[in-house]
Amino acid sequence: MVKVSHIGVAVRDIDSALRFYTEVLGLRPAGRETLPDRGLTVAFVPVGETEIEFLEPTGTAGAVAKFLETRGEGIHHVAFEVEDLEAALARAKAAGYTLIDEKPRPGAQGAMVAFLHPKSTSGVLIELCEHRRD
Amino acid sequence: MVKVSHIGVAVRDIDSALRFYTEVLGLRPAGRETLPDRGLTVAFVPVGETEIEFLEPTGTAGAVAKFLETRGEGIHHVAFEVEDLEAALARAKAAGYTLIDEKPRPGAQGAMVAFLHPKSTSGVLIELCEHRRD
Repeated sequence: MVKVSHIGVAVRDIDSALRFYTEVLGLRPAGRETLPDRGLTVAFVPVGETEIEFLEPTGTAGAVAKFLETRGEGIHHVAFEVEDLEAALARAKAAGYTLIDEKPRPGAQGAMVAFLHPKSTSGVLIELCEHRRD
Repeated sequence: MVKVSHIGVAVRDIDSALRFYTEVLGLRPAGRETLPDRGLTVAFVPVGETEIEFLEPTGTAGAVAKFLETRGEGIHHVAFEVEDLEAALARAKAAGYTLIDEKPRPGAQGAMVAFLHPKSTSGVLIELCEHRRD
């Protein structure tokens, strides 16, 4: 069963970005974690069955820091939860979509993730993810 | 109960944009409608409790045509379903957020909608919407 796992938003400061979601929408932030290999701190705000993921760079390196520099703050990607990530990647590759990650790699919240390049998906940076259920 | 009503994606051609969602994610398009006053054709693909809304301009006028011209295809906005749109707008205004629509106006799928300016919401163009349940 496919669902929107989260919507990733690139921000300069997580705390000020969160304000709208708590003040106006009445939502509550859940976890926050640092991903050293991606140079990011991420915070999640659950909204129904999906989440808003705020991405704040910890330095000037990495894809999100570059995104902020060239495009400014805004929606960075959308992540779809799939049942079988390897199979979805194989379907995407066979259908001619451009993969950023040829193989699943560890992402936030213990998920395995892979990104597709926006040039083949109408300008949308798409993350596919699979949260293993033991 | 707040949820993500839809994620709006600005595209040049709905049919080619839909391909990834049907071929790789196995999703099925639902309705398609034309909004003459916004110069748009919109198509919806349900994903769990939310939807991807594809926005294709019918001409060169309008906000989405301008978005495509300056930024190219990509994620355009995120819409949150709220229980009381007027109350949410009042909270946003009182907290200092910049409203594009001071009052609810009719949107797609029979909803009442209002947009907030991305300059006060971390670069995210936010739509608030309320689907009246009779």
